[in-house]
Amino acid sequence: MVKIIEIKTHQRTELVDITESVAGAVKSSSVKEGTAYVFVPHTTAAVTINENADPDVKRDILMEMNKVIPFEGGYRHAEGNSAAHIKSSLFGAGLTVIIGGGKLLLGTWQSIYFCEFDGPRSRSFYVKIQED
Amino acid sequence: MVKIIEIKTHQRTELVDITESVAGAVKSSSVKEGTAYVFVPHTTAAVTINENADPDVKRDILMEMNKVIPFEGGYRHAEGNSAAHIKSSLFGAGLTVIIGGGKLLLGTWQSIYFCEFDGPRSRSFYVKIQED
Amino acid sequence: MVKIIEIKTHQRTELVDITESVAGAVKSSSVKEGTAYVFVPHTTAAVTINENADPDVKRDILMEMNKVIPFEGGYRHAEGNSAAHIKSSLFGAGLTVIIGGGKLLLGTWQSIYFCEFDGPRSRSFYVKIQED
Repeated sequence: MVKIIEIKTHQRTELVDITESVAGAVKSSSVKEGTAYVFVPHTTAAVTINENADPDVKRDILMEMNKVIPFEGGYRHAEGNSAAHIKSSLFGAGLTVIIGGGKLLLGTWQSIYFCEFDGPRSRSFYVKIQED
Repeated sequence: MVKIIEIKTHQRTELVDITESVAGAVKSSSVKEGTAYVFVPHTTAAVTINENADPDVKRDILMEMNKVIPFEGGYRHAEGNSAAHIKSSLFGAGLTVIIGGGKLLLGTWQSIYFCEFDGPRSRSFYVKIQED
Repeated sequence: MVKIIEIKTHQRTELVDITESVAGAVKSSSVKEGTAYVFVPHTTAAVTINENADPDVKRDILMEMNKVIPFEGGYRHAEGNSAAHIKSSLFGAGLTVIIGGGKLLLGTWQSIYFCEFDGPRSRSFYVKIQED
């Protein structure tokens, strides 16, 4: 079962909490033990897990990444979004969360984030639920 | 089957070799062909695979990452550990190792490392073994 | 089923498109719904997904990564390839692609790349196909 979920991003770089969407896909699958795999089919976006409490963490992650991989550099790619491609590979296109007792086995402070690195755009991600 | 393994870290940033723990979970599961998924339920830690021979590799990885993502910067997060959150997303919360013949199919020089980026702390990680 | 695929790299750092190899492994497995897991058993290489259209994207990714994690620094590892070990952990040793309808469910612009960070060398990667 693969569910395709559409989202809209609103900033050039943005972390969008998608935990509830993924949890909803788990719930509607009725799978109790297994895995949820989240995959981003874009090359200037990614998916990651990070803190869900203080919004400054999201702000600090993006601020620092935009400093380490600057928007402008000695890039040749004509579309001008090479920095977004690099961040996409650094954060990664997919991640797995374990399902236990019908729930995502995330740590207390963990949320799943869709990472926009070249927005704002209409985007999508896939959720594949696999039963043990 | 999900096994929760506790560890203690002793440095602010540290790579702890957890290969034996993961291999032990595989052995006790009696699974011969499948996958072992290692997941870290913390937002200032991660899991990675790297060289197991020369300890200077671990030292160099941490030294360089602490240079690229400095502990102090223009961060706003009040807990003061934003650098750890960023490294956590760069290294990643989970990774899969293939099981073949009842063993982890790692390369000769590969070990699995728990990555502490905001220690020392008591930590844990999950190992989920799946049979084909 | 684990398939081992051999490749040769030709540059010190290089992104080699391996999408066709992985798609071939899927095809020969006859699996219609499931996952393909690609794993690199080396500690100075990695696997990633990125754009397949403009070759300047590959060039920009490598150029910028070689700037952020320079070949020479305060490294101690005697083999002199610590930068490659660090890039290996940043990009990651493994990634999963969803299989649907017997095909890899990649986005339009996505290819799978073997990442050489310490070449040229003879290398290999594993492809494990799992059916739902």
